[in-house]
Amino acid sequence: MIIHVLQLGVGNVGRALVGQILSERAELKSRRNLEIVFCGLFNVNTGAFSTAGLTADQINSFPDSAGHEDPATAIAQMPKPFVVVDATSSAATLPLLQSALRRGGAAVLANKKPLAGLQSDFDALMRAGKNRLYFETTVGAGLPIISTLRDLIITGDKIERMTGCFSGTLGYIFSEIEAGRPYSQAVSAAKAHGYTEPDPRDDLSGIDVMRKVIILARLTGRRLEPDTVTLEGIFPDSMAKLSVDEFMSKIPKLDEEFEARSCNAKAQGNVLRYTASVTPKSCVVKLEAVPKNSDIGSLNGPDNIVVIQTERYHDNPLIIKGPGAGANVTAAGVFADIIKAAEVLRD
Amino acid sequence: MIIHVLQLGVGNVGRALVGQILSERAELKSRRNLEIVFCGLFNVNTGAFSTAGLTADQINSFPDSAGHEDPATAIAQMPKPFVVVDATSSAATLPLLQSALRRGGAAVLANKKPLAGLQSDFDALMRAGKNRLYFETTVGAGLPIISTLRDLIITGDKIERMTGCFSGTLGYIFSEIEAGRPYSQAVSAAKAHGYTEPDPRDDLSGIDVMRKVIILARLTGRRLEPDTVTLEGIFPDSMAKLSVDEFMSKIPKLDEEFEARSCNAKAQGNVLRYTASVTPKSCVVKLEAVPKNSDIGSLNGPDNIVVIQTERYHDNPLIIKGPGAGANVTAAGVFADIIKAAEVLRD
Repeated sequence: MIIHVLQLGVGNVGRALVGQILSERAELKSRRNLEIVFCGLFNVNTGAFSTAGLTADQINSFPDSAGHEDPATAIAQMPKPFVVVDATSSAATLPLLQSALRRGGAAVLANKKPLAGLQSDFDALMRAGKNRLYFETTVGAGLPIISTLRDLIITGDKIERMTGCFSGTLGYIFSEIEAGRPYSQAVSAAKAHGYTEPDPRDDLSGIDVMRKVIILARLTGRRLEPDTVTLEGIFPDSMAKLSVDEFMSKIPKLDEEFEARSCNAKAQGNVLRYTASVTPKSCVVKLEAVPKNSDIGSLNGPDNIVVIQTERYHDNPLIIKGPGAGANVTAAGVFADIIKAAEVLRD
Repeated sequence: MIIHVLQLGVGNVGRALVGQILSERAELKSRRNLEIVFCGLFNVNTGAFSTAGLTADQINSFPDSAGHEDPATAIAQMPKPFVVVDATSSAATLPLLQSALRRGGAAVLANKKPLAGLQSDFDALMRAGKNRLYFETTVGAGLPIISTLRDLIITGDKIERMTGCFSGTLGYIFSEIEAGRPYSQAVSAAKAHGYTEPDPRDDLSGIDVMRKVIILARLTGRRLEPDTVTLEGIFPDSMAKLSVDEFMSKIPKLDEEFEARSCNAKAQGNVLRYTASVTPKSCVVKLEAVPKNSDIGSLNGPDNIVVIQTERYHDNPLIIKGPGAGANVTAAGVFADIIKAAEVLRD
């Protein structure tokens, strides 16, 4: 079969995805009889589109050779069966995804925003094509968290509690603090390694983790608005309006507080971890002290982890752990979703 | 859509599966438009079969109300689309599975034997219907090990090493030995808890773990015969021919050896774990000393774990951990496979 792909977003993840698909395309065709045809590539202001498929040249030289195609028009013209991939980090793709689903296409998202905003937006996506909507990489990148949760739920298991660490950046920072480094130095080092967003407060606010937790909660059938999540950021509101440089120059003022919290934790055999948890009644994102020898407490550096406790996995939970960010592992997760979508669209 | 199911094996797992499907059937129909129709249930000598679907009464009273249907004839008559589930532990189901696949049906196996025997048998199954063959629960029961490995491979990742513990029974035994219990007492306790097969040597031989490792290796594209796996059982050959009672009465003779190995390990910060590992060149199942604070060393009791290192998950591996046995979690994994098969067969 042929699957036609239109990709929104050609940044780090999008670029890695294009590379992986091009390098595996021949293998997929010969081994699984699945032919991937790239019909469209779009960035914010440019796009390349052809119903017959872009040439390798057009793909590799993107966006230099691209025109100013409109993605909405392109989606309306996509040959079936097709998948629209959202590798942007924009909330504005929602109507594009909806129209792709309404036309009978599949949508594969690495982008959390359309799923983690208003409940009504999430509902609209589900109504447009629940069974053709894939978003494995929105939580834990390539780690098989969403698919595992889906399989548990669909077979009738009851989710009692999911707890985890879903920010590689904050994982790194609190591993450094555990090793005795001051908060300000840990944040600076994370920034220097490229682990943080350009403005580190985008990570330190916990909003990205909150989005993941909303997606997990909604998968279990919960209906909730973002402002009902209990969210503890790890810098004071008074520092929210500063420029990035001002913020970075002032964070040593926070060192003492975090050192005290870390020492307190250590005195009780605990360590600080930035955790998120979902139960049937609550959704909480916060910094907390957990036992050092627990699964979450022994997590190291930027790894992610999820601990899933259910009716069937009650005494001993199901645990998935590993790198939860990075262009290559995220792209691979998106790629696997595209293949799954293709197999379901096969007719 | 309707999916027709014929199930071979109504033991612990098979019985749990029937229960889960019956209790989720209405939900699946209303939520996912998927209707599961049980057409056949078979044990070794009995079977109930109806192309129109068995009644709830026929299912619940199985095998009392069953006749002596022949599963081969039943499979030849299965209405499409259909799935044959193998919840037996018999090597004899291979031709049945092949004929189901050749007829365009899907096969879902909880049974390792047809996949872990001769390479030529495995090849025959793959030839008959590679893309319609599901066997998630053959390694780690309901843990998402096989599907994760498949997604990695299909997206072009290269598996460098998989290491893990795949026997809940042996996990329990070596956790007990770690806690200072003699080998013989640990084995007796495992037997008393029902963790072992009726003859504990079926677990202690490592053959069940070896089957899992063969399946993992073959998934990566390796071709290998069972007798090429390096396998270290944990009782001497000289005790292989004893009756179960004689064996149980003689195992205290092994206590000293295991106590010495355990103490040796402990002196170096290690613990004994019964591990299996697959690399592109080797396949090894053995008792080894691993660092206590490693992922494998910190595993507790009957949990399973797999540590997957690949080209993309190179520095930090992908880890999945949790209960790797039990009728309910295994049945849930089989159930999820049936739903996936149904979605792929949908037309």
